[in-house]
Amino acid sequence: VSEGRLLAALRGAQVDRPPVWVMRQAGRYLPEYRRVRAAAGSFLRLCTDPELAAEVTLQPIRRFGFDAAIIFSDILLPLSRLGVEFAFPDEGGPRLPAPLATPEAWNRLEAAGDGGMAHLAETIARVRAALPEDVTLIGFAGAPWTLASYLVEGGTSRDHAVTKAALLSSPEAFDRLLDVLADAMAAYLRVQIAAGVQVVQVFDSWAGTLSAADYRRHVLPSLSGLLRDLDGTVPRIVYAGGSVHLLGELSDVSCEAVSVDWRTPLSQAAELLPGKAVQGNLDPAVLLAGPEAIREAVVTMLATAPTRGYVANLGHGILPNTPIASVDAFLAAVRGQQ
Amino acid sequence: VSEGRLLAALRGAQVDRPPVWVMRQAGRYLPEYRRVRAAAGSFLRLCTDPELAAEVTLQPIRRFGFDAAIIFSDILLPLSRLGVEFAFPDEGGPRLPAPLATPEAWNRLEAAGDGGMAHLAETIARVRAALPEDVTLIGFAGAPWTLASYLVEGGTSRDHAVTKAALLSSPEAFDRLLDVLADAMAAYLRVQIAAGVQVVQVFDSWAGTLSAADYRRHVLPSLSGLLRDLDGTVPRIVYAGGSVHLLGELSDVSCEAVSVDWRTPLSQAAELLPGKAVQGNLDPAVLLAGPEAIREAVVTMLATAPTRGYVANLGHGILPNTPIASVDAFLAAVRGQQ
Repeated sequence: VSEGRLLAALRGAQVDRPPVWVMRQAGRYLPEYRRVRAAAGSFLRLCTDPELAAEVTLQPIRRFGFDAAIIFSDILLPLSRLGVEFAFPDEGGPRLPAPLATPEAWNRLEAAGDGGMAHLAETIARVRAALPEDVTLIGFAGAPWTLASYLVEGGTSRDHAVTKAALLSSPEAFDRLLDVLADAMAAYLRVQIAAGVQVVQVFDSWAGTLSAADYRRHVLPSLSGLLRDLDGTVPRIVYAGGSVHLLGELSDVSCEAVSVDWRTPLSQAAELLPGKAVQGNLDPAVLLAGPEAIREAVVTMLATAPTRGYVANLGHGILPNTPIASVDAFLAAVRGQQ
Repeated sequence: VSEGRLLAALRGAQVDRPPVWVMRQAGRYLPEYRRVRAAAGSFLRLCTDPELAAEVTLQPIRRFGFDAAIIFSDILLPLSRLGVEFAFPDEGGPRLPAPLATPEAWNRLEAAGDGGMAHLAETIARVRAALPEDVTLIGFAGAPWTLASYLVEGGTSRDHAVTKAALLSSPEAFDRLLDVLADAMAAYLRVQIAAGVQVVQVFDSWAGTLSAADYRRHVLPSLSGLLRDLDGTVPRIVYAGGSVHLLGELSDVSCEAVSVDWRTPLSQAAELLPGKAVQGNLDPAVLLAGPEAIREAVVTMLATAPTRGYVANLGHGILPNTPIASVDAFLAAVRGQQ
């Protein structure tokens, strides 16, 4: 089928086998990525140079034949359009030199203009031109809650305690912050859609750090608004990490698919997300355990997956120390090869 | 009642209000703790000097009148009896200079003797002698899975990927490791019980990192064995972090109570853990959000708690930067004061 397996599965159609791709499939576990990354000099240049970004986006398609490519970037990049400064040091995660910890700081976020995205549109055009017709191109953005946590904590966090305290002690100002981020990300995704991405994925990586009550009250309105803003454009996937307790909340979000991790049984996700496709959910750690463990885990995963509306993937980004042979074993199992 | 509220609640009896204590209640958020810690010179000395350990165990009881004291120690300490070396640097979590990453390393763990625990018995005796009759003394140990993760990773871990890969690639050897740890912790807890602790809590802090299927297959047998070993001794609480998807598994464990975090609604825990008391579950981050947010969160928590068999607590250890006034506000709300 020329539309490709991913688009077919996202509209609930029958497919010959589940479409499969892997979060962070363009990344450090690939030797060809590490070569381009080293030559680029900086992570930021790799993301913003259309030739380099297109090249690393395409590398995993060439090597593995995934059913989808995802534009190489980072969820923090579009925050620069709001006046936020950040750095990607070679070791450790991204850092904000000046975390935004107070309502006053949130109010200083500048309204996003439409400028500064030409490189992204060019990357998307280059990738689309190079992709086989049945390989779907995915664009992405961070969800407001996950982006807010980076802004408030100044980087990744184990417990997100500063962000949660900000949410609870300044709920109205925090909700406004989430709305500003939602509007900016909707605009960012519309630029990607106009340039040619065929599916978008919104990453709420830290969804699972909140109780269902707080998620519903504080996070869901802005996330729902962001996704409703894209009604009628392209299919939308919401990745929600650690969200086994949030399926009731996520069922209310306007999207075609929810991506869950290994703590959420696929059968439970399909049952509690009626009308939506389900994506996931292999633990990336399984890919460190050797081909037999991988095959067994994939067979178990597929046995609990819905027969329609299912996209095979990991439950979180692939780990940088994953052996190439493990990805081969994962794909062979999903494709029903021995 | 001279037995105290905690013991009454753990056997499902009516109490005038829920018993309340806080995980890590003896710790860095207390100025009197920081003074003793500084004078002790090292964290290890603080744990193993009966006079100092008893003092910091009693500090939060004097200040706050909690319904329970918990012996000051660390879950890694009894591993030294298995020949494991570790260090508690002043910054960051505990570190093992030589992580145990292979089945060969696990097989070299020495059988635990009964020696080297005189200081612990003396600490327990000192605390019991100083505690009011209705304040219950809790002893504790780490659960096999959580201890194994420290052993294999060499410290705390974000994703526990090395441990999971070890579990999946060497399942039989890993299960033996868990059994060795379970036997050692059962012996360690029996020493504490003989010395006078009235309740034990087993910390499976990293329970929630696994899928329910892997938890049931690999982790539950050793955890269940450890707890069955203590049948007929004192009431047992199992703390399982991030375990909203594991309540079915935990319902099978021989214990009087399960301690859950804020991602598990208390009403759901009570329903899925028939015959067991429930402990928890306030997000420690709430204690950074000011008295009004704290009061509101506690009222919501208590409204969903079972009327019998409930112990008020946090869902994880109290954060080091928690203001004293926040603990006062938390306690006033639990005690129904305004």
